[in-house]
Amino acid sequence: MPISVVDTPREGFLPDWVDPVHESDLIERRRAIHMTPEVGWCEFLSTARAAEVLSGLGFEVKVGREILQPDYVRGRDPEEAQHAELYAKDQGVPRQLLDRMEGLTGCVAVFDTKRPGKTICIRAELDALYMNEPEDPEHLPTRENFHSMRPGVMHACGHDGHQAVLLELGRFIAANKERLTGKIKFIFQPAEEGSRGAYAFVRSGVLDDVDTIICAHFGLDQPPGTVYTAPSKFLCTEKIDFEFIGRPSHAGMHPQTGRNALMAAANAAINLMALPRHGDGMTRVNVGNLHAGEGRNVVAAHATMQIEVRGANEKIKDYLAHEAVQRCAGMAMAFDVQMKHRVVGEAVDFTPDDSVSQLITVCAKRARYCRNIQPHLTVTYSDDATVMFRRVQQRGGKAGYFIVGAMPTRDGQPIHTTENVDFDERYLTTLYDTYTNVIMALSGEW
Amino acid sequence: MPISVVDTPREGFLPDWVDPVHESDLIERRRAIHMTPEVGWCEFLSTARAAEVLSGLGFEVKVGREILQPDYVRGRDPEEAQHAELYAKDQGVPRQLLDRMEGLTGCVAVFDTKRPGKTICIRAELDALYMNEPEDPEHLPTRENFHSMRPGVMHACGHDGHQAVLLELGRFIAANKERLTGKIKFIFQPAEEGSRGAYAFVRSGVLDDVDTIICAHFGLDQPPGTVYTAPSKFLCTEKIDFEFIGRPSHAGMHPQTGRNALMAAANAAINLMALPRHGDGMTRVNVGNLHAGEGRNVVAAHATMQIEVRGANEKIKDYLAHEAVQRCAGMAMAFDVQMKHRVVGEAVDFTPDDSVSQLITVCAKRARYCRNIQPHLTVTYSDDATVMFRRVQQRGGKAGYFIVGAMPTRDGQPIHTTENVDFDERYLTTLYDTYTNVIMALSGEW
Amino acid sequence: MPISVVDTPREGFLPDWVDPVHESDLIERRRAIHMTPEVGWCEFLSTARAAEVLSGLGFEVKVGREILQPDYVRGRDPEEAQHAELYAKDQGVPRQLLDRMEGLTGCVAVFDTKRPGKTICIRAELDALYMNEPEDPEHLPTRENFHSMRPGVMHACGHDGHQAVLLELGRFIAANKERLTGKIKFIFQPAEEGSRGAYAFVRSGVLDDVDTIICAHFGLDQPPGTVYTAPSKFLCTEKIDFEFIGRPSHAGMHPQTGRNALMAAANAAINLMALPRHGDGMTRVNVGNLHAGEGRNVVAAHATMQIEVRGANEKIKDYLAHEAVQRCAGMAMAFDVQMKHRVVGEAVDFTPDDSVSQLITVCAKRARYCRNIQPHLTVTYSDDATVMFRRVQQRGGKAGYFIVGAMPTRDGQPIHTTENVDFDERYLTTLYDTYTNVIMALSGEW
Amino acid sequence: MPISVVDTPREGFLPDWVDPVHESDLIERRRAIHMTPEVGWCEFLSTARAAEVLSGLGFEVKVGREILQPDYVRGRDPEEAQHAELYAKDQGVPRQLLDRMEGLTGCVAVFDTKRPGKTICIRAELDALYMNEPEDPEHLPTRENFHSMRPGVMHACGHDGHQAVLLELGRFIAANKERLTGKIKFIFQPAEEGSRGAYAFVRSGVLDDVDTIICAHFGLDQPPGTVYTAPSKFLCTEKIDFEFIGRPSHAGMHPQTGRNALMAAANAAINLMALPRHGDGMTRVNVGNLHAGEGRNVVAAHATMQIEVRGANEKIKDYLAHEAVQRCAGMAMAFDVQMKHRVVGEAVDFTPDDSVSQLITVCAKRARYCRNIQPHLTVTYSDDATVMFRRVQQRGGKAGYFIVGAMPTRDGQPIHTTENVDFDERYLTTLYDTYTNVIMALSGEW
Repeated sequence: MPISVVDTPREGFLPDWVDPVHESDLIERRRAIHMTPEVGWCEFLSTARAAEVLSGLGFEVKVGREILQPDYVRGRDPEEAQHAELYAKDQGVPRQLLDRMEGLTGCVAVFDTKRPGKTICIRAELDALYMNEPEDPEHLPTRENFHSMRPGVMHACGHDGHQAVLLELGRFIAANKERLTGKIKFIFQPAEEGSRGAYAFVRSGVLDDVDTIICAHFGLDQPPGTVYTAPSKFLCTEKIDFEFIGRPSHAGMHPQTGRNALMAAANAAINLMALPRHGDGMTRVNVGNLHAGEGRNVVAAHATMQIEVRGANEKIKDYLAHEAVQRCAGMAMAFDVQMKHRVVGEAVDFTPDDSVSQLITVCAKRARYCRNIQPHLTVTYSDDATVMFRRVQQRGGKAGYFIVGAMPTRDGQPIHTTENVDFDERYLTTLYDTYTNVIMALSGEW
Repeated sequence: MPISVVDTPREGFLPDWVDPVHESDLIERRRAIHMTPEVGWCEFLSTARAAEVLSGLGFEVKVGREILQPDYVRGRDPEEAQHAELYAKDQGVPRQLLDRMEGLTGCVAVFDTKRPGKTICIRAELDALYMNEPEDPEHLPTRENFHSMRPGVMHACGHDGHQAVLLELGRFIAANKERLTGKIKFIFQPAEEGSRGAYAFVRSGVLDDVDTIICAHFGLDQPPGTVYTAPSKFLCTEKIDFEFIGRPSHAGMHPQTGRNALMAAANAAINLMALPRHGDGMTRVNVGNLHAGEGRNVVAAHATMQIEVRGANEKIKDYLAHEAVQRCAGMAMAFDVQMKHRVVGEAVDFTPDDSVSQLITVCAKRARYCRNIQPHLTVTYSDDATVMFRRVQQRGGKAGYFIVGAMPTRDGQPIHTTENVDFDERYLTTLYDTYTNVIMALSGEW
Repeated sequence: MPISVVDTPREGFLPDWVDPVHESDLIERRRAIHMTPEVGWCEFLSTARAAEVLSGLGFEVKVGREILQPDYVRGRDPEEAQHAELYAKDQGVPRQLLDRMEGLTGCVAVFDTKRPGKTICIRAELDALYMNEPEDPEHLPTRENFHSMRPGVMHACGHDGHQAVLLELGRFIAANKERLTGKIKFIFQPAEEGSRGAYAFVRSGVLDDVDTIICAHFGLDQPPGTVYTAPSKFLCTEKIDFEFIGRPSHAGMHPQTGRNALMAAANAAINLMALPRHGDGMTRVNVGNLHAGEGRNVVAAHATMQIEVRGANEKIKDYLAHEAVQRCAGMAMAFDVQMKHRVVGEAVDFTPDDSVSQLITVCAKRARYCRNIQPHLTVTYSDDATVMFRRVQQRGGKAGYFIVGAMPTRDGQPIHTTENVDFDERYLTTLYDTYTNVIMALSGEW
Repeated sequence: MPISVVDTPREGFLPDWVDPVHESDLIERRRAIHMTPEVGWCEFLSTARAAEVLSGLGFEVKVGREILQPDYVRGRDPEEAQHAELYAKDQGVPRQLLDRMEGLTGCVAVFDTKRPGKTICIRAELDALYMNEPEDPEHLPTRENFHSMRPGVMHACGHDGHQAVLLELGRFIAANKERLTGKIKFIFQPAEEGSRGAYAFVRSGVLDDVDTIICAHFGLDQPPGTVYTAPSKFLCTEKIDFEFIGRPSHAGMHPQTGRNALMAAANAAINLMALPRHGDGMTRVNVGNLHAGEGRNVVAAHATMQIEVRGANEKIKDYLAHEAVQRCAGMAMAFDVQMKHRVVGEAVDFTPDDSVSQLITVCAKRARYCRNIQPHLTVTYSDDATVMFRRVQQRGGKAGYFIVGAMPTRDGQPIHTTENVDFDERYLTTLYDTYTNVIMALSGEW
């Protein structure tokens, strides 16, 4: 994909009463966030940062079980989270805030203009990835000295940028509150990777008063300055953890009294990979790992598996998930062992509302550095924002999604060495402007 | 096993009032039976022969559901049986007798002396094997022209001899009825091969008045003239048929709507072979065959398997059978198909009553051609006579079993070419004499 | 799919020197063929009919190994074919012709105009399906008394119509030979069902001189009178038979000496169903059937499986076929048994040449009863004509395919009771006219 | 097993020139060893203790590769061993000795009398178990304050006692060297648990000059004071580690490019459990654990399994091990992954030489506290001393084994709470005396 772009920024078209944020503010914020990456359900520092900034700007900030229904917290490792919480306390996060969080990261910040109007919702993701940051000097954080301070953890998916934009948007809202109506709700979601975090918000009810929800993502491998306003074909996926619990016995003396969890799991694994295809579209299944057994001479009494299914649409995904549980339940029965399963992640398909896509188109055209508008993009990944979209749409609200192409380039050519783990910081401005315009269009009185 | 025997027959010791059957009568009967072999549950001609001979001698003969509890008729192929019945009708078996049989082969013939005494039971098996009779001139039936008239079916296990002996025993009883007491009950059992036939007799109650049951078998690979009077370690076995019933679908268009019986069966087969060993003794499992599926492009909707388990004792056998059903039930659940299973054969272990073994020892010693008495022989096969023995012993009766070594030899050497499918006809006399002595010992007034 | 058609035939536009075939001739021929259906590789009567008619019209007809490379004859059951050949002899097919056929059905008939020009090839399929013909009076062959004379076998896929058209086309060519150039080659292919027959023709070289090949099919569930001129997305498929050969042993006495073919096959079956999906497009796998084992107490020494794989394109299909063989080879190794496999059917994807599709469009527009031209149709089945197309295109020739919608209707509504097993006979004329126009366009001097 | 013993010690019968070791010396030594348990291949402290004590007594002590053939060091975890070595250094084991050991624990100590005579070999095991020592005051080490100082590691199998006896035997030999002939060779073997350590000694050749080898074990659940002089039916076992190495790929985007090690391992596990039984005797198989895969959405590229097979004799064990490798190799081929396997443990069956068993009988009768001599005991565990015995016997030497019943009792009743993890310390004397008598019998001049 040879990309050659002219670096002359297009001017944005904001109303003159808007004081556009300086690019440098966005960049500075982003770099600070980039340096302290935290993995899913461990984002105590990030949550605290968002909570403190937005509280200071007049947002009402909620954390903990009020916004996260604990029964639907998916894919959270309690031990890992506990370590992260201790680290955060050590780094100076106030004890009182940590107590309110009840161990659960993420926050919801609402700006209530006190005037009648719509409720708009925008989400940013908090989590980073287990990944070493490249040392290559072509990699901007290396060159510009804002490299991750935590070895093995990195903001490699642009979530640092999304957060930075939302914090600056908060400043915009506070500064222009007199010209706005209704409520603006920001969700800072933990654990987007693995499609884990969104569901607990949905089940807590925080989406239920939303009229319009809009999410966005940097396109790390999309042409810089191109905004995709109606991306579709998000992969539907479900992540499931299985556990088989049998009974140990001495394999030499009493093989007959054991209940072999390893056998149940091994059979399940093979037959999960053999889940039927589907006549209506693409399917995927993967048993990512399987751990079973204890000593060499003991009938294995315990086994775990982490799997995922993907489908071209939610119906296919649900079919696969249902069949997966059926296979495992049968295998458990066959070997007289107990089976447990937990859904630890989910993302669904999504059809954006036309009116929202059109609004995004108009707003993006007015954004700085936007060079090109494309409606369609086939998205080859999952985003559990779709779970939030589904809730809002099911309750009569509207939803939209857009992607801001921000592939890092040098001399108009992609920088291959750091491909897909960084973005061109200029497009923080494009994302910010588009959101600003959207807020003004939906809530503004101009 | 080099065997060298001297061919001088030992004389038997029958009381002088007994008119010993002529060897030639036994041989003639045996050869007639040998020529018309019938496989299990198809023995209409054989049943008719026994019924007619023994009725003529004053036995009360019962057939059909009165003696065979239909719910426990195991391993019977109705279509095959129907063909056999038609063939028997065509061969002149009276319609009235066939009607009484209700499609079920086998008969029970009771000689009631009308005098108080014990009830003795002796069993002979009716069925032959699917097997081509050797054309080798070393093979006696070939040389002497009493070869099976039905290609592919052969009396290769000595059951023709057992029947012949029982029919002549009938003559003995009728001739000597004044010197006998109690009742003598003959069971002509179908389908001993596969351990199928005995159970339906047991469940009909025909064994329930038996004081002593004795069965015998020619030892086709045992030294001629040696009688084993307390063989033990019969293998416990259970034969089970499994059926999986799913739902077909077009494998290209709608793979997801099928319910795959082939997959359930294939998984079951593998995991049956993986049934755990047992700390208390020997186990065996075999999935003998598996037939599944229809067209190449159809999700397979039907599958069958024939399996057997064996164990060192009845408890281990029962454990294996239980686990086998568990595996198959689980696999059926895993693939959302229906599973059916039927026990089609069973044999159990057996400890002969000492008093009966001693009686057999005494009686065999007096039998013509008997050269050697051995108490013990480890039996490496199953005989579902053990199911009858278990019933009699559980109700307080006694049971015994003996084996008459009758390996065919020439010049004192085993005839290898036809090994294990024929017996030396002289030992018909040994078997006959032993039984005669037993009857006289238990029921006689001498 | 509500279809309402006006039954006024559109007139065709043939040049005035053409004497259009009477509809009734086509229908009469079709009905005769319909009554004598023959399954794949058994089409001795059908081959003889084509050979005799076309020889009589001046075609050079070839049969047997000259046109069918025996090593590539796929999915032929020799025993079934032998029975069919005997039946054909009995029905009066000349011995000499049968001898020339060498047991292989199908023929190639070439009309050489002796004048320079292109070589055009048209194919018709000979085979019928194992299927009982519906007795429903709505079903035309039932109502009009040309029902299959062979119970269980039926022309349910329109191949009778294809043959009828080719035979009448032969008459057209013979009658107009003075106005034609080059050669016209007809292939009467056996065993199209299961994608078996085409490959042996390809390997014999009979396609190698072809400049343009065109095939057509009635659309039994397509709107009557609509001609699809560039159908695409044919499913790529490969049909493979697997055989595992182990070693029997007595499962009780010597389980360790057996080599278990059933276990190899059962494991293979499961893991074939678990062949990975493919990132580039649709995959399908099916193990249609599995037959393994002999007696219940014998370690199973023999197993067979019939499988098929399908892929969105030839590359994916080849990937699946390769992996399938790999799985089975590994399983054979794991169980120390022998594995054999044979490809018994194959169809590939196909992109028609634009120039041919355009020609078909022009020619179909001039055909009687043609009401509507559609370029695209996504074909959800396989046709091994694609194997012939691949050969011709690889050697620089051109290929095209068209579908003549011919769903039977009554009062403008589909006849549901006999759906997809018959066609409206009027469209024999449409098919005939389109072919006639194509021949004239490519070989004619008008 | 109700056991009631009278606690009156029988007097031993040692020649009067022998200064019998004081019980308290043995007990003191044992307790010191008990407090510093080390697991297999980590016995640096234990090796150093034996080396230093015996060097000081005039034995020639060898360590490292001279006595342990590194290619046959089985089941050693290099990382674990390295930690143990560092710990030992920290505890004051001389650097020079550690250097000589080359990371390998165990030693061979030879006392050469310089006079002609036999070479006698006695082995003691060095390793302890991963196990928490019971806190129960009934447990002697708890009551008497010689509890393991290393949490999670414990001498629970009596190896501390065996070592103590050998060290005191060293003192006996040194003190009586004038009355002895030939050589006495002590082997301090690491890693007996898991049948790992013996083989490397065998392959180094240290057994090759041995005329008689004798090993012994406390019977932790055998009646105190009973000596079994010819135990047999040791289980033959082989411990094998398998590794499958595939290729990762993104399970959603490119499932087809992965090479799935998890699938290979899961199939292998199931089919290992399904290894056929053996007609000649008992078989066992266990897949103790299986660990496969990395991330949930990655095709699993790595898998490991730890398995063991057991057989009634070495031939059956070898059969199972061979078949196990065959299954895994086939599965690796089926999934196009690499397979590696390593034998990490082995024990074989053993028939003691009659002459040695008789000698042990005589010698044990003269030992203090010996109450009862039993020749036979069916041993239901493995001991890789059998691998040493096989070597010695194959080269014409003789081998014997005896068990000293030493179940801890209180008031003549077994102490159930600490069953099978401790022994009655009085029988250290019995073991010591028996060995002393054996040495005098074989090497002494009395």
